[in-house]
Amino acid sequence: MENIKIDLTNAIPFIDLTDFNKYEKLTAEKNDLLKSKSGKGNEFLGWNNLPNEIPSELISEINLTAKHLNQISEIIVVIGIGGSYLGSKAVIEALSGNFDYLNTNKKNSTILYAGHNLSEDYHYELLNYIKDKTFSIIVISKSGTTTEPSIAFRLLRKEIEDRFGKEQASKRIVAITDSSKGALRELANKEHYKTFDISDDIGGRYSVLTPVGLLPIACAGFNIKDIILGAKSMLKQSEENPFNNNPTYQYAAIRNALYLEGRTIEILANSTPRLNFISEWWKQLFGESEGKENKGIFPASASFTTDLHSIGQYIQDGIRNVFETIISIEKTKYNLSIPTDIDNLDKLNYLEGKSMDYVNKMAELGTSIAHSDGQVPNIKISMPELNEFYIGELLYFFEKSCAISGYLLEINPFDQPGVEAYKNNMFSLLGKPGFEEKSALINKRLKKN
Amino acid sequence: MENIKIDLTNAIPFIDLTDFNKYEKLTAEKNDLLKSKSGKGNEFLGWNNLPNEIPSELISEINLTAKHLNQISEIIVVIGIGGSYLGSKAVIEALSGNFDYLNTNKKNSTILYAGHNLSEDYHYELLNYIKDKTFSIIVISKSGTTTEPSIAFRLLRKEIEDRFGKEQASKRIVAITDSSKGALRELANKEHYKTFDISDDIGGRYSVLTPVGLLPIACAGFNIKDIILGAKSMLKQSEENPFNNNPTYQYAAIRNALYLEGRTIEILANSTPRLNFISEWWKQLFGESEGKENKGIFPASASFTTDLHSIGQYIQDGIRNVFETIISIEKTKYNLSIPTDIDNLDKLNYLEGKSMDYVNKMAELGTSIAHSDGQVPNIKISMPELNEFYIGELLYFFEKSCAISGYLLEINPFDQPGVEAYKNNMFSLLGKPGFEEKSALINKRLKKN
Repeated sequence: MENIKIDLTNAIPFIDLTDFNKYEKLTAEKNDLLKSKSGKGNEFLGWNNLPNEIPSELISEINLTAKHLNQISEIIVVIGIGGSYLGSKAVIEALSGNFDYLNTNKKNSTILYAGHNLSEDYHYELLNYIKDKTFSIIVISKSGTTTEPSIAFRLLRKEIEDRFGKEQASKRIVAITDSSKGALRELANKEHYKTFDISDDIGGRYSVLTPVGLLPIACAGFNIKDIILGAKSMLKQSEENPFNNNPTYQYAAIRNALYLEGRTIEILANSTPRLNFISEWWKQLFGESEGKENKGIFPASASFTTDLHSIGQYIQDGIRNVFETIISIEKTKYNLSIPTDIDNLDKLNYLEGKSMDYVNKMAELGTSIAHSDGQVPNIKISMPELNEFYIGELLYFFEKSCAISGYLLEINPFDQPGVEAYKNNMFSLLGKPGFEEKSALINKRLKKN
Repeated sequence: MENIKIDLTNAIPFIDLTDFNKYEKLTAEKNDLLKSKSGKGNEFLGWNNLPNEIPSELISEINLTAKHLNQISEIIVVIGIGGSYLGSKAVIEALSGNFDYLNTNKKNSTILYAGHNLSEDYHYELLNYIKDKTFSIIVISKSGTTTEPSIAFRLLRKEIEDRFGKEQASKRIVAITDSSKGALRELANKEHYKTFDISDDIGGRYSVLTPVGLLPIACAGFNIKDIILGAKSMLKQSEENPFNNNPTYQYAAIRNALYLEGRTIEILANSTPRLNFISEWWKQLFGESEGKENKGIFPASASFTTDLHSIGQYIQDGIRNVFETIISIEKTKYNLSIPTDIDNLDKLNYLEGKSMDYVNKMAELGTSIAHSDGQVPNIKISMPELNEFYIGELLYFFEKSCAISGYLLEINPFDQPGVEAYKNNMFSLLGKPGFEEKSALINKRLKKN
């Protein structure tokens, strides 16, 4: 069985190699902190051994629910923000064909998202688009009172109840929420929605392997069992492999070493557009875990070769505080070779009969060398192919590396205190009950300007 | 007539205001360099007065060509990389409804892109998707030998000629290329394709207001005349308005002042997902213009409130080398207000009857204040609404600001020397004729590793 591999060839020259050896001990220590639950944020470690703990009954229940929703819906609207939508969207896009979104005859329902923004036009157009289609809702919120998903759920619940009647609507709504408390749990109990629990010990950005991520992924027609098997495989490697052969240790170590050398921007790059949303998921995972106490690596993304004709110039020649992590897929799904042309005006005949992926791989290799020569360290992550198993490995690889990396940085990788700041101001400006004093203060301050 | 406005309220406190006054003189000087064509890269200034110079005959010709392509095609494939696809994709996504891509009965052809990457699966799936649909090609390349678009054009030209015959194929291919030389011009002449010229004095990232951007935009059904009117309006403001009321001067000045204060990452943020690809266009414009000589601001992007639950944590609490530029749309296209709910379990009744956009605006304002309090300067750009005219203003606003900003940074904003590095390695690895020596060197070097 092949696995995801990490290659540091083009990163090692940029750090002190003797010094790097210290990470052998450090990464194992940080992993022990996770296992013994004795580090910062230890109330949020439910994701750590999760791949070994998911009961097969839960998988069956998720698959049955997905089957039911598919049977009664052309569209399934997933309502959630942050970790409640990024994981499933990332996985669905990675596993779908590039043009599947245009296929109106596909076997599975189309998954659309709502409540991940406050755009009035977006939600108006969504309601307008689904008005003549059968649809269901998966609403994801631990509290049931987060502003964005709550507003979207009010709008969509009204639509579904008006269209199908309250009783039928209840069969078209699945709630993923707290197991016992909160507004959404209360409503779900009252209206007899099918529900799945959000554990207290798994934060949003670590929730992709819970029903939060798995139900929408199953609805889109993908094999969630294989995703979990992949995650399990990476968990095993991260527990058992020695430092030199442990991808999670290697990645956490090298990015910490590069950070200490002044590399404060990491670009996650790929060579296939299907991974673009994995980068969005990754940005939340690492940005929200590490960006605190005025520390952390700024997470950015690029898609090659596309963006070599965009921020490629900056990477090659800009400020030297950047490093890259490039995800490479070893095997394509399809085969397409470059046709011959008698005239050869475009001078491509030297590539005649070569696969397009061969050219892509040489571009990838050429880029790694060029960026390394331009003083940009780059890390290579190889995936044997793009399927459920390796996506599972990739997800858990990033989750575990991120936790270890956060501990190396000596922050709490599992909280997100900064996310409250905009919310508090928003509530004050909106005059939310309970924010009267803050409301008066912010309005006074704005008048002064 | 309203215009795009820039508001520096939350950025000014982070710079030395006395010092900022020097930019009044500096920005005007840099703009004079552009007008007199006496600065660096002065061979690429064709974009500067372009909005005033586009002949109405060219607009008519583009619109007629778009009409013709629409009549004979369900799909129009635009082949191009970098500036040859970013501008049109950005504008089409900004002006399209959020779910228009799912509408199979729309009036205009669906625009798809190719040759902007080397993904074998992407191009295989594209060929597979169009195999039972009528399609046309717009191929965009100055030289006709850029690897990515050339390979895609070979594949798609073969498909179109096999399907429709060589003569009919010629009526389904439009080439946008050099006016007299190069592989694509030669082929177009031979095969009698309809062509549009790429001027020698306009680089890829400044080409959105030439046929490169305008033809695909017209094909998608948008009014290119209004886009140009918007650009013209911003050109006029940038030429005539005094410093304090000149958005291009203000933006160039503040970002330079922030850069000198150590702000080396700029995040372009929006409050509506329709602008997400404008951010991709903007990243190329600024990243490729400024990222050189180990200088320049690293361009990144975010979509609010979505990403406040992602890199929002980093922005609030991470390393303080970040600033933001937030595009706000004053007026929505549609109206949607928050319905009441007797039970009020989600506690949203305090927002009952309020428009969703009102909540979005309070989130935006709350975020600006929170980020400013968290020591992240932010610049606000207001667009009265999302239509062709204001998109035209926005495009030219960024183009002109970028040129002035690049001159303030004392680099050549119009070259991209770093883009050659990966290409040279790729050609050497692929064994391209003419690269024999470099080929031997790179292979020797790889063997050593």
